[in-house]
Amino acid sequence: VTIRNETEFIQNYLVPLTRGAAGTFGLKDDAAIIPVPDGHDLVVTTDAVASGTHFMPEQSPADIAWKAVAVNVSDLVAKGAKPVCYQMSVAFDNAPGNAWVESFVRGLDEVQSAFDLYLAGGDTDVRRGPLTITITAFGVVPTNRMIRRSTAQTGDKLYVSGTIGDSMNGLLMLQDPSAATKFGLSRDIEQSLINRYLRPQPRIELLAALREHASAAMDISDGLGQDLAKLAAASGVGAIMSKHRDRLPLVAHASDDYEILAAIPPGQANSFEAAARKAGVAVQCIGTLTETTAIQFLDSDGATLDVSLGGWDHFRDAR
Amino acid sequence: VTIRNETEFIQNYLVPLTRGAAGTFGLKDDAAIIPVPDGHDLVVTTDAVASGTHFMPEQSPADIAWKAVAVNVSDLVAKGAKPVCYQMSVAFDNAPGNAWVESFVRGLDEVQSAFDLYLAGGDTDVRRGPLTITITAFGVVPTNRMIRRSTAQTGDKLYVSGTIGDSMNGLLMLQDPSAATKFGLSRDIEQSLINRYLRPQPRIELLAALREHASAAMDISDGLGQDLAKLAAASGVGAIMSKHRDRLPLVAHASDDYEILAAIPPGQANSFEAAARKAGVAVQCIGTLTETTAIQFLDSDGATLDVSLGGWDHFRDAR
Repeated sequence: VTIRNETEFIQNYLVPLTRGAAGTFGLKDDAAIIPVPDGHDLVVTTDAVASGTHFMPEQSPADIAWKAVAVNVSDLVAKGAKPVCYQMSVAFDNAPGNAWVESFVRGLDEVQSAFDLYLAGGDTDVRRGPLTITITAFGVVPTNRMIRRSTAQTGDKLYVSGTIGDSMNGLLMLQDPSAATKFGLSRDIEQSLINRYLRPQPRIELLAALREHASAAMDISDGLGQDLAKLAAASGVGAIMSKHRDRLPLVAHASDDYEILAAIPPGQANSFEAAARKAGVAVQCIGTLTETTAIQFLDSDGATLDVSLGGWDHFRDAR
Repeated sequence: VTIRNETEFIQNYLVPLTRGAAGTFGLKDDAAIIPVPDGHDLVVTTDAVASGTHFMPEQSPADIAWKAVAVNVSDLVAKGAKPVCYQMSVAFDNAPGNAWVESFVRGLDEVQSAFDLYLAGGDTDVRRGPLTITITAFGVVPTNRMIRRSTAQTGDKLYVSGTIGDSMNGLLMLQDPSAATKFGLSRDIEQSLINRYLRPQPRIELLAALREHASAAMDISDGLGQDLAKLAAASGVGAIMSKHRDRLPLVAHASDDYEILAAIPPGQANSFEAAARKAGVAVQCIGTLTETTAIQFLDSDGATLDVSLGGWDHFRDAR
């Protein structure tokens, strides 16, 4: 069954996702009002996901919906912002069927519940071209407390949350069902790696620890090497990376992990680690920021490793 | 010449469009801060334009850029919101060349200057599929003063700004270069109609008059018939349309005009007309809102005309 028109899609499926928030006007107006509490800044980020580029067409609509919102939540969390709501622009290739829409809306409902945000408004189109979901997400942070990329200091310790590379391995296993057996991985591990790719988990539990301790932060979406280079360049510092030695070539390039990269002043490293432990999120120190702007990777003897920073560039790498 | 990478596109071409606004961080962070002055609500709207659906691929990049932003400004103005800034997500089919990007950025610069807003942030992708520009635009309105769709009252006078149908005629002339001669139109008139399609002019001069006098408003983008039906349904009223009699079948369906449809309480009609005249914008009363929810079109003898409300539905009409 194909949904008959935009109005049916919006009123029957999308309106419940507004959670009745006052500024959404039941999706019956041309615009929404985004609430900003006194003493707070409104933080906004935009990321689009397109079929064939950011997800595979055979993924479930629920997983696609989850990912579209989660990659934006990840940016908010890295900035110290508590998620509030989002605008969604969906471009369909065909008018979707009921089953597809029901799965898609279930994924939106799940990601909204997981990260406590609602749908504020948006736009729907049908045109030739890959299914594309463009999300602009809103979060709030106490005034002037957004965690930036450019404010890291020489001497700060570099931390990453979770594990880097899981998502890329999950994608590998989705693309090659024999890979897990080849590497001797159990079905449970295989599934958990695949889930890391399908349903990225922004580290919202780290919000308080980041706000309290980070001098700079960003999420790792394009690969640790490239994202670290961006943070270092924005802050005018370099880095010596001294962990992950044997896995470095993998770790520097792996994308889609949506873990946090944070610069923590050395005097606060212990309390940051304690706060992360209390929040139930594994973090590890992988390096130190330096005055020279070079980024160096050291092996266990302290010798320099030649590791390309790699990562994804849409203009260079797409198609 | 093709632009080498996303960073070059962003830093060389997009950064100047931020006008140095503090919350944009020179487009070097993962998020932006949208300023909201005390005593104001933040109004947000999202509209995407895609090649082949909302514009023709042979249009100049400057015109495409203008339209992408202007259709969002039109929504803000209809809500009584003063434009502030916008997020832009661009999905390219190919990495663009310098000449294309220079024209595109010139169009953005022009529309920004015309409506006094800046680029806050966004996202860039390259994937197979039509060039698509998704804009989320932000405006501000004094607290609780956003002009809604649902607050029109029985007895209110219905006004439209400008002329309806020009944009559709302009598109016709773009598609058929002999049309102007056929209809006996001068080159000047032909060009002005084409410009109505290529470069919609949101009625920002009406902002104060709308804030002061409108009980409800929206912009006319999908066709007067359909948009009026939406406003009436949201407000739980009907309408008797008594102007534009001979042109009604055209006027009800014509899309892409981005004029304003406003409900004005009868006691304020004169002062609204005076305020519009002072603002230099032609407005005309085309009907009256009624208690029954029907929408009637009357001819000059007061007999009912059979006019379909028409308009565009993406799920039904695309492709």
